[in-house]
Amino acid sequence: MASNYSPKHFNVTFPQEYVAHVEINRPNQLNAFFEAMWIELGHIFAQLSIDPSVRSIVLSGAGDKAFTAGLDVKAASQGLLSDSSATDSARKAVHLRREVASFQECVSSLEKCEKPVIVVLHGFSLGLAIDLSTAADVRFCAKNTQFAVKEVDIGLAADVGTLSRLPKVVGNFGWVKDVCLTARLFGPEEALRVGFVSQVFDEKAGAVRAAIEHAGLMASKSPIAVQGTKELLNWSRDHTVQDGLRYTQVWNSAALQTGDVQAALLSGIQKRKPTFEKL
Amino acid sequence: MASNYSPKHFNVTFPQEYVAHVEINRPNQLNAFFEAMWIELGHIFAQLSIDPSVRSIVLSGAGDKAFTAGLDVKAASQGLLSDSSATDSARKAVHLRREVASFQECVSSLEKCEKPVIVVLHGFSLGLAIDLSTAADVRFCAKNTQFAVKEVDIGLAADVGTLSRLPKVVGNFGWVKDVCLTARLFGPEEALRVGFVSQVFDEKAGAVRAAIEHAGLMASKSPIAVQGTKELLNWSRDHTVQDGLRYTQVWNSAALQTGDVQAALLSGIQKRKPTFEKL
Amino acid sequence: MASNYSPKHFNVTFPQEYVAHVEINRPNQLNAFFEAMWIELGHIFAQLSIDPSVRSIVLSGAGDKAFTAGLDVKAASQGLLSDSSATDSARKAVHLRREVASFQECVSSLEKCEKPVIVVLHGFSLGLAIDLSTAADVRFCAKNTQFAVKEVDIGLAADVGTLSRLPKVVGNFGWVKDVCLTARLFGPEEALRVGFVSQVFDEKAGAVRAAIEHAGLMASKSPIAVQGTKELLNWSRDHTVQDGLRYTQVWNSAALQTGDVQAALLSGIQKRKPTFEKL
Amino acid sequence: MASNYSPKHFNVTFPQEYVAHVEINRPNQLNAFFEAMWIELGHIFAQLSIDPSVRSIVLSGAGDKAFTAGLDVKAASQGLLSDSSATDSARKAVHLRREVASFQECVSSLEKCEKPVIVVLHGFSLGLAIDLSTAADVRFCAKNTQFAVKEVDIGLAADVGTLSRLPKVVGNFGWVKDVCLTARLFGPEEALRVGFVSQVFDEKAGAVRAAIEHAGLMASKSPIAVQGTKELLNWSRDHTVQDGLRYTQVWNSAALQTGDVQAALLSGIQKRKPTFEKL
Amino acid sequence: MASNYSPKHFNVTFPQEYVAHVEINRPNQLNAFFEAMWIELGHIFAQLSIDPSVRSIVLSGAGDKAFTAGLDVKAASQGLLSDSSATDSARKAVHLRREVASFQECVSSLEKCEKPVIVVLHGFSLGLAIDLSTAADVRFCAKNTQFAVKEVDIGLAADVGTLSRLPKVVGNFGWVKDVCLTARLFGPEEALRVGFVSQVFDEKAGAVRAAIEHAGLMASKSPIAVQGTKELLNWSRDHTVQDGLRYTQVWNSAALQTGDVQAALLSGIQKRKPTFEKL
Amino acid sequence: MASNYSPKHFNVTFPQEYVAHVEINRPNQLNAFFEAMWIELGHIFAQLSIDPSVRSIVLSGAGDKAFTAGLDVKAASQGLLSDSSATDSARKAVHLRREVASFQECVSSLEKCEKPVIVVLHGFSLGLAIDLSTAADVRFCAKNTQFAVKEVDIGLAADVGTLSRLPKVVGNFGWVKDVCLTARLFGPEEALRVGFVSQVFDEKAGAVRAAIEHAGLMASKSPIAVQGTKELLNWSRDHTVQDGLRYTQVWNSAALQTGDVQAALLSGIQKRKPTFEKL
Repeated sequence: MASNYSPKHFNVTFPQEYVAHVEINRPNQLNAFFEAMWIELGHIFAQLSIDPSVRSIVLSGAGDKAFTAGLDVKAASQGLLSDSSATDSARKAVHLRREVASFQECVSSLEKCEKPVIVVLHGFSLGLAIDLSTAADVRFCAKNTQFAVKEVDIGLAADVGTLSRLPKVVGNFGWVKDVCLTARLFGPEEALRVGFVSQVFDEKAGAVRAAIEHAGLMASKSPIAVQGTKELLNWSRDHTVQDGLRYTQVWNSAALQTGDVQAALLSGIQKRKPTFEKL
Repeated sequence: MASNYSPKHFNVTFPQEYVAHVEINRPNQLNAFFEAMWIELGHIFAQLSIDPSVRSIVLSGAGDKAFTAGLDVKAASQGLLSDSSATDSARKAVHLRREVASFQECVSSLEKCEKPVIVVLHGFSLGLAIDLSTAADVRFCAKNTQFAVKEVDIGLAADVGTLSRLPKVVGNFGWVKDVCLTARLFGPEEALRVGFVSQVFDEKAGAVRAAIEHAGLMASKSPIAVQGTKELLNWSRDHTVQDGLRYTQVWNSAALQTGDVQAALLSGIQKRKPTFEKL
Repeated sequence: MASNYSPKHFNVTFPQEYVAHVEINRPNQLNAFFEAMWIELGHIFAQLSIDPSVRSIVLSGAGDKAFTAGLDVKAASQGLLSDSSATDSARKAVHLRREVASFQECVSSLEKCEKPVIVVLHGFSLGLAIDLSTAADVRFCAKNTQFAVKEVDIGLAADVGTLSRLPKVVGNFGWVKDVCLTARLFGPEEALRVGFVSQVFDEKAGAVRAAIEHAGLMASKSPIAVQGTKELLNWSRDHTVQDGLRYTQVWNSAALQTGDVQAALLSGIQKRKPTFEKL
Repeated sequence: MASNYSPKHFNVTFPQEYVAHVEINRPNQLNAFFEAMWIELGHIFAQLSIDPSVRSIVLSGAGDKAFTAGLDVKAASQGLLSDSSATDSARKAVHLRREVASFQECVSSLEKCEKPVIVVLHGFSLGLAIDLSTAADVRFCAKNTQFAVKEVDIGLAADVGTLSRLPKVVGNFGWVKDVCLTARLFGPEEALRVGFVSQVFDEKAGAVRAAIEHAGLMASKSPIAVQGTKELLNWSRDHTVQDGLRYTQVWNSAALQTGDVQAALLSGIQKRKPTFEKL
Repeated sequence: MASNYSPKHFNVTFPQEYVAHVEINRPNQLNAFFEAMWIELGHIFAQLSIDPSVRSIVLSGAGDKAFTAGLDVKAASQGLLSDSSATDSARKAVHLRREVASFQECVSSLEKCEKPVIVVLHGFSLGLAIDLSTAADVRFCAKNTQFAVKEVDIGLAADVGTLSRLPKVVGNFGWVKDVCLTARLFGPEEALRVGFVSQVFDEKAGAVRAAIEHAGLMASKSPIAVQGTKELLNWSRDHTVQDGLRYTQVWNSAALQTGDVQAALLSGIQKRKPTFEKL
Repeated sequence: MASNYSPKHFNVTFPQEYVAHVEINRPNQLNAFFEAMWIELGHIFAQLSIDPSVRSIVLSGAGDKAFTAGLDVKAASQGLLSDSSATDSARKAVHLRREVASFQECVSSLEKCEKPVIVVLHGFSLGLAIDLSTAADVRFCAKNTQFAVKEVDIGLAADVGTLSRLPKVVGNFGWVKDVCLTARLFGPEEALRVGFVSQVFDEKAGAVRAAIEHAGLMASKSPIAVQGTKELLNWSRDHTVQDGLRYTQVWNSAALQTGDVQAALLSGIQKRKPTFEKL
């Protein structure tokens, strides 16, 4: 299986049946991202999304220092933020819009991925770290994590997802405004208190282990049920309750025909672990 | 008054002026629901919604063991989840969609009910327990409560409201994802911390007493004001702030003409309890 | 600068470069509002919104007793709530709707203001206090603050913003329902726990100082970045994630062309405080 | 089959396999509606919606003079528009809102009906006639039809659907405004030109015959395909194109599994009329 | 009454009871608009909106040559489109956005005006002419009218309403795209065929007379009914059918309490013209 | 330029500066589509969207017989509609949903293309022909065109765009329902009358010539203005007027900074054809 994934800037491993582990692999530069990296990330998650051998995913960063320190500013100032091909402000705007759109799409691949994604943060977790992790489903972190929505410090409003998703991930709009308008650092305790992360671990290694175990738990359930649940929760976030209910009816009108219900009920009665057909 | 309600699977009592108490009454089966029960529940709340003698409602479960253990799986596997009348998957889907829709409508009767509904949870509070309580306004629980969004464990995505309402009840999307994707149990402390319940009580009996008292407090206010507040909060949850403000203008253009404002102000000055005309 | 603002019912001062401080100035009546006051408040915030000398704003109340005790009920019962010009209920409704609309617009001026607004609450902070502070970005308070969504106690559903904004500020819908349906008092600790306020201070004076300092921090950043961040967060609150992402692309296609990015990056490298062109 | 329907104020017949014909049957009063009638209409369409023997429906009015002259004003002024039980304007408003809501729901039963509904209008087709026909799918009429959105002439804004649906049925908003703001009569030619009706016939009888034939054509197609098409068109009217596309994916993920596709393709090759399993 | 309106760039007259006639009065410059004009227009319509002596409004242009040739390009290139105060593209963008917003608000005053507005177009009706008339309710024109969505010809996308409103006024999206993407002229016949105008008249004078008469017809109806109808139609354009129905319930819960219903019914029986209390 | 496009199933030519012509090239099979074709079409339009040498596009079909007869049913029944890899209905549904989604995305590439697309229809224009042309901006056709929303005839609800877009392209919902629910053929005259096509030509060749000329007219305007107009119209179709106005402000805050305005104004004064920088 693993042989199908041979990314350049990430490690993709399969620590457990049905669980994939994606690791950002540029530890010497604090896992800072340049364009080729986020494009590759998008491809990886698009593939995981339809890979029948995968039912849940853990995303973490290599090395001890950082999940990611965010955008590689040096690379960005030669790419995204510079545009020598146009002198007209309106034309520059068109190019910038296209670039931001393509960057956003890569980050959104975590959300569009049909399987649950658990992110493990540690060390520097700045800027893009927040964008990526709000596009995931569950966030764990190590005690040494330093978070910041860093963008206003470099003169820009965050543009690959944090400002759109963070207010829907964390139900404390004053806190969201505060950290986004000041770019101040915050730590694991605060992140836990406001609900940005679900669990804090002493060490990164322990956090990764726990995340894989948790992903394993999700992978042990019916994939029809789990993937439907992710989709229905994300849809509901963006729609009225009534549109959520209606969409659920239509979704489940097919999903309820699965044999997994029978399999789950039977193994429940027989007190054994159910197995579910690939999806 | 009480004589008007003679349900089969529930008790409906009036412990206090303007306060109704609905009790799920199938304690020997852990208050598990079958179709006739949720249909009856829908009727009860439709009636309470327009009953001028009722201004607030408490919903709880009979017996010591469970608010409700959820769907009666045995009954369901003979009903909802089996469909012998059709062999065509698309036709089965139509039947399933209709059944889910009708089931959802019964659960939604708590939300549509014009009066505030306080739910008291205790013991097993699984699956449908979460659907029902997210459709209510306020949630209290006893210390012995065991909660779970249990559906993925029986091979399906929850479909009568939890996935649409829970993310709007609790502002911690990572936690919502976690409990819905793993079906894991959680307890009162966790429920309180994330804001799923408002108060935890040592015993079920105390929780019910407190809920009735709290309902009594709501029932002592102007019903025009209280019922308008419930409606405007629910509308606002599903609309932009601007649509919320506009709807509020229109709603209050009639509601502000009530004599209750005068009554409330006067009794405030006179330091006595106001009385309000029936509604 | 300050000379341009000479309001009657408020103090407007500039405690620090780029920071404005607006103080409700009717301490002898617990800073209770009558119509001329909220209209003036609307004008002040409209002016601050486009004043290039202002980058962030603190709003607080004069005196020791109250941020504001809310609507001046006596004034209101002679104005908003009485309408002698019409006998026809439908015509009264039209007049009431227009008045509520115009009142709402004044309160919304805090949200529409392009710069961040930090509110400092203390003492009585009832009714309108909640409407105003939910229209702001960040809320601080003193230990002696007594909060209440007081409206149902005077026979009406809150109509100038609380019911539309509070559920989007605080991700605990049960708590929102509870305080809005009962009009009960709650204190700073509870407000902090549910995320309604971000920080609690021993004294009002300390809270104001801290708010000004915090506003100063925001004012030290690129105004293009900060004001874009406020706008994008407010837009995202009311739209789907996808509409948020799209709007962000378009917004930033102009904003990323600012020289502030270069200025911020350079001063970052040179370890000095950046200065940004007026806006 | 027909024996299952024995309404008091309507005739329900089955002129052709899978085609139901509902006739408003109060010709001596110009088919004017009172409350019991619209409640019965709601029940009829709820039943037709799930009746496997029905695949399309024609709705017309008995007698020569009118499809319907609208609300029976005399009955209404004793019911809907009079409310002796309340003196408080706000309480009256609550009662009126409930009554309008329940009336709307009956009219909406045509839209919610899973099968296509063709309305045949003739003679007086005033007020409620427009509400009912905009809730249907296709409109035919006789040459003698006199249409009017009559409500402003009796001092009220139309409230059971015309103002919400007509602008989405007819893409000429100036015309919609004109006829709704003036209550002026318009005839078949104008109705055809703006797209309110699809066809005009010399006589009512011919219009009914053609409608039944047209309904028969719809009934000859796969019910999975036809009913899905109605649902997807109505959903799309109220949602963005993207939400329409997404809903279509989910809907068709079950519907495409039907055997009807095979049946339709085969009978196409074999040049014979396909038959489709009941639904 | 008329004495209350003394605009500089418009004539405001009262040709008939309850009917106001607003005339753009810069005929020597083809009624081209500069900033002071649209600001004044906004004030006029805000005043008309709440003037109890006004129930409907006609808007036309003075002189023979033009309703309006649009923006006064010379004035605009010194104002809106030039910005010497900022050199930073992002800061220029902020200023441009504010200016466009303020311009849009003036145009939207026609839509926000609570009374129906009939526009009469003649001669050159370019650019802003389309923006203004799509913000109105009904459009009449003279035979000599030359329409164009002219903006792309001067290098910009129309920004004060045409692109947002025209697709909702005219149900022919291909035609809308065509005229907006080519800036080509179109005439009254085409405008009538696609539903952009409701009637075409031989001469401007006749069109104005007919518009005043039509406005008079609207003004003769219950103002509660007419103004409610305008509001409900505009709301419904921007919302789902269900939100339209719900809003209608709430709106009419107050509006149905009007004495106008009784007045209208009685005068109907007595075959005389009803009179309605001022609003 | 043309050398960059070498598709297998289409011809891409450049009949005029800035105008691209895409031709469906499978005339012997009535231009029926199989999967590789729609994927290629998606790639072509993605490339055209950002190609600075292209400002407008014409799409037509090769040969005399058909624009396209739709899906190649034989190919589809071996692909999309057959799924041998899954026996579980729920798993089949997941696969079908993914396939429909990917098909929809290809069709949507016409809408997402930043440049205007004119479609020329002729001969058989069935099923997919309608999906494709509603995703374009303007539709021309030849006199011999035979249109049908054919899908219900093969047992399915149209799923790659017609049901979501047709009701927003044509403002006659009754007609849309009729042709979608009956699959009946309709001709150019009817298509023109309801506004589905903008112009009808005697011969296909003339239609193509006229479309290229029309595309040339669009291509002669400022690309900033034209592409902004397409985007703002499509956005407005799916949003409220107010969201449309706001988005327009933000969009134009960058776009108005173009030198094209100056270029267009100057060349207008100098009566010569303006030239605009590439985009």
